[in-house]
Amino acid sequence: MKYSKLFGKTVKEVSGEIKLISHKLLYQAGFIRESVAGRYYFLPLGIRVQDKIMKIIEEEMDKAGAQKMITPVLHPIELWEETNRTNSVGFELMSIEDQRGAKFALGGTAEEMMVDLVRKFNVSYKDLPFNIYQFSQKFRDEKRARGGLLRVREFLMKDAYSFHADADDFQKEYKVMGDSYTRIFERVGLDTVRIESDNGYIGGEYCHEYVVESEAGESRYLIADDKSYAAHEEVAVFKREEMNPDEDELLMEIKDAPRGPTIADGVKLYNEPAWRQIKSIVYVTDKGDFVLAVLRGDLDINEIKLKKALGCFEIRQATPEEIEELGSAVGFVSPLKLTIKKVGDISLKSVKNFYTGADKPQVDTLNVNYGRDFEVDIMGDIALPPTNCKSEDGKKLLEGKGIEVGNIFQLGTHYTDKMKGCNFTDKDGTEKPFYMGCYGIGIGRTMGTIVEVHNDENGIIWPKSVTPYEVHMVTIGSDGVVTKKAQELYDEIEKQGMSVLLDDRDERPGSKLKDADLIGIPLRIVISNRTLEKNGVEWKERTDKEAKDVKMEDIISEIKKFYT
Amino acid sequence: MKYSKLFGKTVKEVSGEIKLISHKLLYQAGFIRESVAGRYYFLPLGIRVQDKIMKIIEEEMDKAGAQKMITPVLHPIELWEETNRTNSVGFELMSIEDQRGAKFALGGTAEEMMVDLVRKFNVSYKDLPFNIYQFSQKFRDEKRARGGLLRVREFLMKDAYSFHADADDFQKEYKVMGDSYTRIFERVGLDTVRIESDNGYIGGEYCHEYVVESEAGESRYLIADDKSYAAHEEVAVFKREEMNPDEDELLMEIKDAPRGPTIADGVKLYNEPAWRQIKSIVYVTDKGDFVLAVLRGDLDINEIKLKKALGCFEIRQATPEEIEELGSAVGFVSPLKLTIKKVGDISLKSVKNFYTGADKPQVDTLNVNYGRDFEVDIMGDIALPPTNCKSEDGKKLLEGKGIEVGNIFQLGTHYTDKMKGCNFTDKDGTEKPFYMGCYGIGIGRTMGTIVEVHNDENGIIWPKSVTPYEVHMVTIGSDGVVTKKAQELYDEIEKQGMSVLLDDRDERPGSKLKDADLIGIPLRIVISNRTLEKNGVEWKERTDKEAKDVKMEDIISEIKKFYT
Repeated sequence: MKYSKLFGKTVKEVSGEIKLISHKLLYQAGFIRESVAGRYYFLPLGIRVQDKIMKIIEEEMDKAGAQKMITPVLHPIELWEETNRTNSVGFELMSIEDQRGAKFALGGTAEEMMVDLVRKFNVSYKDLPFNIYQFSQKFRDEKRARGGLLRVREFLMKDAYSFHADADDFQKEYKVMGDSYTRIFERVGLDTVRIESDNGYIGGEYCHEYVVESEAGESRYLIADDKSYAAHEEVAVFKREEMNPDEDELLMEIKDAPRGPTIADGVKLYNEPAWRQIKSIVYVTDKGDFVLAVLRGDLDINEIKLKKALGCFEIRQATPEEIEELGSAVGFVSPLKLTIKKVGDISLKSVKNFYTGADKPQVDTLNVNYGRDFEVDIMGDIALPPTNCKSEDGKKLLEGKGIEVGNIFQLGTHYTDKMKGCNFTDKDGTEKPFYMGCYGIGIGRTMGTIVEVHNDENGIIWPKSVTPYEVHMVTIGSDGVVTKKAQELYDEIEKQGMSVLLDDRDERPGSKLKDADLIGIPLRIVISNRTLEKNGVEWKERTDKEAKDVKMEDIISEIKKFYT
Repeated sequence: MKYSKLFGKTVKEVSGEIKLISHKLLYQAGFIRESVAGRYYFLPLGIRVQDKIMKIIEEEMDKAGAQKMITPVLHPIELWEETNRTNSVGFELMSIEDQRGAKFALGGTAEEMMVDLVRKFNVSYKDLPFNIYQFSQKFRDEKRARGGLLRVREFLMKDAYSFHADADDFQKEYKVMGDSYTRIFERVGLDTVRIESDNGYIGGEYCHEYVVESEAGESRYLIADDKSYAAHEEVAVFKREEMNPDEDELLMEIKDAPRGPTIADGVKLYNEPAWRQIKSIVYVTDKGDFVLAVLRGDLDINEIKLKKALGCFEIRQATPEEIEELGSAVGFVSPLKLTIKKVGDISLKSVKNFYTGADKPQVDTLNVNYGRDFEVDIMGDIALPPTNCKSEDGKKLLEGKGIEVGNIFQLGTHYTDKMKGCNFTDKDGTEKPFYMGCYGIGIGRTMGTIVEVHNDENGIIWPKSVTPYEVHMVTIGSDGVVTKKAQELYDEIEKQGMSVLLDDRDERPGSKLKDADLIGIPLRIVISNRTLEKNGVEWKERTDKEAKDVKMEDIISEIKKFYT
């Protein structure tokens, strides 16, 4: 490709609103352009990277025995109703009606579509297992789109769905896919951590995220210092250590409490650590019910765990007015008096003689003990892991932050139970629901992440595996001989099956070299009168500081060596 | 691929509602499944064919210097409003609103999106010309979807858009694209006719369709017997021969006419050919205006030409009540009395002494002459070509019917004039609007068309270039030796870079061979104890009646020969 004819050249200015380095570089170097917030054009350079990422994914999926196919983008809404996801997905689902009144969801994920397809066939145990996948455009009506490719409203996704006779067979595939994912990300130049995570609206019992450590990420996770455990903070389990096991349970006591409404105010008043207090938060569920979440004062509520414990899709904190109407007082709510449903964190068992409010302003209750003085309707894990906590088996948990680039889900019979007739005929002739898993990778986000972690002050540094072109050739001087030699070399390299971006513009050398750094192709070759005097080129690898001379006759073999 | 593990096997029964042969075969052989009317899954076999078609298109587009990229699927509706296509596209455009109230069109074609992208850049004449293309999902809210892949509501399309400094430069690209299209269709096994056609809601001054002759097609066209002219019936121009040049113009005469309302009734009454009469049809435009279309009695109105002559998007015939309210009579409308806007076909000049109604029931006017007795506001070509007509230069026009698989459009400055700021900087420093063209190929329709023309009573016959697998290998008998030899050969062929579908099922030989014919891979290889006795295989080409024996050691070279 001649750079003079490439559509989507580099630009000097970047809007101050562009914050992420990957966004800035992909924009400036001419890989992407925003249409409107969260919706991107992939320019010719960008699509070449995307194609390479897709090819690697396809190779690994095929090697793992998965079969590529594709579903329509518009999903009949009836299918999403069958699984009740029109409710659970909430605001993220976009839907549309055609002129005949038929309603469709714009594909967000394709579980229902794949299940609906599979149930059109008479599948027998002999046909199992199979794993079908697609690359298809996905839509998420996100409230906030972030800059660049990391969180968008429309994106290409590789999503795979596997169908099995039973859990054992699924487990094998879950491992195969997990290994494929690790290999895919390695091949595109990304080190990933595999963490347990929340399944969101996908459903199923467990799942894992593949995360690339990065400050730009939105996934916060905890990882044991020996890496034996890693989990998203939303689902991470941690040890609630006994805080005062040797104390005796004291008599409950009501006391005037001249303090503000927060845990910190209680710490100040009593000069006792935060764990001494009970934190009680009133929530309202999506069904309009009041619920009291109760946990140790030094911990914070994990709303995802709380929603799961309650089996609801949305919750919000009650307003001060609602708390008063319930007969309590803001900042002095306790689990002692209110008769609404209570959900307690297991940390309630780790402290003796808690302090808490008395459901009246400026009055506290001291020496409250779980079990003796109050109970909860649901006891479980509803807390966010605090800093410096430990895993259940006592290992130190370190905090990490990263970008989620892929995830794999156990689905079990979550969909095939809900959707009628999605069964296979087993050996004994009985009909059984498929046992399923699903597996996703966001292509654009993978590309954004690669740039987020592979760059320097001068621009992108593409991993060799996904570079848009193998060679960035730059001519210096508009000398006929230089042009001719460059063209000959260009033809020769392309003949060998490698691709070249030839910057043939009549521009200042400095600006052409700067553009080459910005675009980030791993190998830059400069041809000028000076290099031709020595019958060669100037060879510079993007990650090296220094250039070197390479003779004309050695170039092809050197390039091949570089790329193997 | 082992057929036993392939998702999407052949089925025996086909619903009686499936009419098209391509639909029937693609369904039965396991290439596609319908989600809902007009929206299809491409199964693993189908996607392999689609990938091959796409690869051929991509190769030819790249060879022609076009650059692949991609736009979002959701197009901000404001862009379609800029060009007024929210009105002109009418019912076919699907639109959607997100939770923030932003409106989008689901991409039907991408002229606005590409123009909007290009105007984000400072383009100079030095950057021109360029041609950018994408493969992307397109949506058309069709009233009727036909069976199979020939007319659907959602499909993958290759759409390209070229940007030029002027018409001359565009003309070169139009030719290059035209040649590329011919080559693309040749390579996928389709003979195309290139015909002039209507640009519909795309706009511009001229365009061409690529049509594959087929009874299943919806494009009716006329082609000169020497192929020097070919055009869709919607735009075809034809010669209006003088019917009675030697007659003298007679005096106009009002006469009782005891006849029915049709031209045929007039023919019967007067015993004169249909051309003797004037056909006058009252239309109502999308703005609510009445219009009278007037043409020779033996011709039919071409509503597309009529709409173009009127510059409106939709028209409908007036109701009998409306005709009476205008002061005329159904079946006796004439161009003589009504004062509404009149559009006349040039055929009005080819007859002397027309007969027509008198705008009263059962009364006619005879010897009416255009020019002498009435005029029209717009005179032009608004007729459908009749059977056995001639081209303007006197050649016999033959009728054809076919499937439109691609089209190319001159757009000129149709979009860049309407959309603000879509200019480039010319040599002299002035800003000029881009001169554009666009070029589309429907991928699914291309696949459906291939099957429509390449099949026999036993199934599909894939052209070698787009076959899902190169070899369909069938084992007969579940003998360990057969299985082992088949696996060895399978591995060997795949190692050579060719792909094999191995039917390893424990099924009756007859049913496996039948499936092979149905699926339509060009080359079938059978391995059985019988063939192994002769140290070989049975080799049968899909288009041959007879099989032959090929020795094991010759197979690879024979396959290579077959595929070159």
